[in-house]
Amino acid sequence: MKGFQKLTFTYEALQTWFNAFPIETRVTTVPLNEAANRVCAEDIRAKQDLPRFDRSAMDGFAVRSEDTTGTSQSKPLLFRLTEKPELEDAGPRQAKQIWTGNPIPKGANAVVMLENTKKINDKIEIWSQATPYENVSRKGEDIKKGEIAAKGGTRLRPQHLGLLSALGYNEINVIQKPRIAILATGNELVEAGTQPAENQIHESNRIMISALCKELDAEPLDLGIVSDEVDDITEKIQIGLKIADAVITTGGTSVGGLDLVPEVVNKMGKPGVMIHGVAIRPGMPTALAALDGKPILILSGNPVAAIVGFEIFGRPLICKMLGMKKEELRPTVEATMTRKVTAALGRKSFARVKVFEKNGETRAEPISTRGSGAISTMTRGNGFVIIPENREGVAENEKVTVHMFAAIEV
Amino acid sequence: MKGFQKLTFTYEALQTWFNAFPIETRVTTVPLNEAANRVCAEDIRAKQDLPRFDRSAMDGFAVRSEDTTGTSQSKPLLFRLTEKPELEDAGPRQAKQIWTGNPIPKGANAVVMLENTKKINDKIEIWSQATPYENVSRKGEDIKKGEIAAKGGTRLRPQHLGLLSALGYNEINVIQKPRIAILATGNELVEAGTQPAENQIHESNRIMISALCKELDAEPLDLGIVSDEVDDITEKIQIGLKIADAVITTGGTSVGGLDLVPEVVNKMGKPGVMIHGVAIRPGMPTALAALDGKPILILSGNPVAAIVGFEIFGRPLICKMLGMKKEELRPTVEATMTRKVTAALGRKSFARVKVFEKNGETRAEPISTRGSGAISTMTRGNGFVIIPENREGVAENEKVTVHMFAAIEV
Repeated sequence: MKGFQKLTFTYEALQTWFNAFPIETRVTTVPLNEAANRVCAEDIRAKQDLPRFDRSAMDGFAVRSEDTTGTSQSKPLLFRLTEKPELEDAGPRQAKQIWTGNPIPKGANAVVMLENTKKINDKIEIWSQATPYENVSRKGEDIKKGEIAAKGGTRLRPQHLGLLSALGYNEINVIQKPRIAILATGNELVEAGTQPAENQIHESNRIMISALCKELDAEPLDLGIVSDEVDDITEKIQIGLKIADAVITTGGTSVGGLDLVPEVVNKMGKPGVMIHGVAIRPGMPTALAALDGKPILILSGNPVAAIVGFEIFGRPLICKMLGMKKEELRPTVEATMTRKVTAALGRKSFARVKVFEKNGETRAEPISTRGSGAISTMTRGNGFVIIPENREGVAENEKVTVHMFAAIEV
Repeated sequence: MKGFQKLTFTYEALQTWFNAFPIETRVTTVPLNEAANRVCAEDIRAKQDLPRFDRSAMDGFAVRSEDTTGTSQSKPLLFRLTEKPELEDAGPRQAKQIWTGNPIPKGANAVVMLENTKKINDKIEIWSQATPYENVSRKGEDIKKGEIAAKGGTRLRPQHLGLLSALGYNEINVIQKPRIAILATGNELVEAGTQPAENQIHESNRIMISALCKELDAEPLDLGIVSDEVDDITEKIQIGLKIADAVITTGGTSVGGLDLVPEVVNKMGKPGVMIHGVAIRPGMPTALAALDGKPILILSGNPVAAIVGFEIFGRPLICKMLGMKKEELRPTVEATMTRKVTAALGRKSFARVKVFEKNGETRAEPISTRGSGAISTMTRGNGFVIIPENREGVAENEKVTVHMFAAIEV
């Protein structure tokens, strides 16, 4: 009847694990309009200057700025309106009507806004001086040919698609979605939608872990539910290692008689389980393993512990598999605790809180854990406060950083 | 040669617009594993208690708590191990081995952790007192039958899928994706991937607006690019009103000779354009309209102004069309400005900033706008500071709230 001999700190656990398998990214080409949320496979450089030419930033009249010298509201100047494509090299004051986005005609170097002009027959009266390149978007001022428009490893947001589209790209190289095989283990589990026996429960971890994978742009592959049988678990993990780049299991990790999954993985080959028992709460029985050069993340069957284990280990794993330079973090907010929360010294604790605004102040209300495994703490709350290993809790009115997993309700 | 007679404040503009058309949501049933990021159509109640039965929260031994009274490390008590499904009504101290998640056997009301026990032949030694229901997850402690598991109008996150799955749901009613037809107007525009003429540019707004719609769970329908011709624009908007629930256009909104789209919409019917000219920067020439009981959002052709106009008007529109009770806001962070930013009095200004952490402080660096229309300000930055109408800017070292559109790099 063993307990965990030693709990490993998260940072150390992650280092050990990441050293046990290679990370190989694969590249695929997708149409730009399907590239949102995907990760750029390489630095993408501007194929051209943007804007491609000096263009008007306003509706108005293109002029030579020096021709406007000395004009003012009390001293307007008359300009000749030209219909030609460009201003003449010399000659009296000329202006050419121009709309936002039009190329600046040759010979002109500034635009006077429509509001500062008045048409008088075939001439135009101007009462505002224009400095050189006033109201002109210069060629290349947004981005110059050859500059990086999107760095390799960047998650592509709508605005990246806009920039790349403006540069003429209509397809792009992104990192292929890492395939993550997901298996739930436990004799007590049945599929949602089926009737459980008296001592059974509906399985709920696969759907959460799958959705979290998809948010990060990984492709979940469902290995289903398997009972607590060595042969069945072995077979499913073997399938997972064959069809996917990583395997995530839930259940069968605690120190009791059903500490099955880590044992099975150890029997399957080397290096097997590297870490079993992590200094986090919940999620302590999480195990990290590798087989056939592929990572295996062995999560607790407790849904909250499974999510915490995924956040700590699954998220950075997938970011790495996507070729991201750094782990992508959830947004954080600073908030004031409405009540104290106690935590275990020596563990990194994940307290669920609900962040809300009151009288202009951002406050974090601890979710009462009527049960630490209570999955509803993750729907009633919208963020985690991470209490470090060297703290026994956070105090009432303490300022904390909350890692948000859902929006603040206002 | 008109300018905008009057700029409308955003809140007032939104109110006027929303009063001009009905919002009707449609409901559709989807498998639970496709429901992430969708919006719940109705309150979903727990069909059963969760947990369904009193279950062990630990590996250990189920006992009657009163049998453990007086035990301690120096004074362990011996319990008889039973193999029967339940403890006997009376008789000497009995214990039944139990694993995390197992139902508590009848007759028992507490669990003693494995770590506080020792097996001695066919008996078990226990040295830790257990209070009633210690290490027991009570029936219904997570959520009780009939309680609301997900409110109507809630955006479903992975943890909601977990909770609903645990409650036995495998499909769910969500709001149908609102269909948004998107049209770009402008003689100067060509599709990305084609070669522009000397005075043309690659169109880049549709792909951004489409991606922003998709993030919110709306379905973008592409109406393509249309030249600045009344008949062509009319035809495309008519198609949009037929196939979609709302139409968004970009371009042809400014006060000059090409102020086309608002004019076209006004010719098409009533009420037509309700608001043209909004007190925001960029995005001032944004127009809000309605035809055939459907909203039309007329955005500037300038990509940054188009995004700002979408954030201010498109985002709350789609949230409303999804049946959400409140607009879903982007995450915000508090940051300190590294430099001052000037803004126009009387306008709500959207300054792009890059938020970063330095020496434990969150700082916001204004993105130098080498051109206010520069789309790269939205890829180099990761958030907006919204400067209200009554401010001429924000000062260096001022604390500001940043609305994040991408992650903070650390």
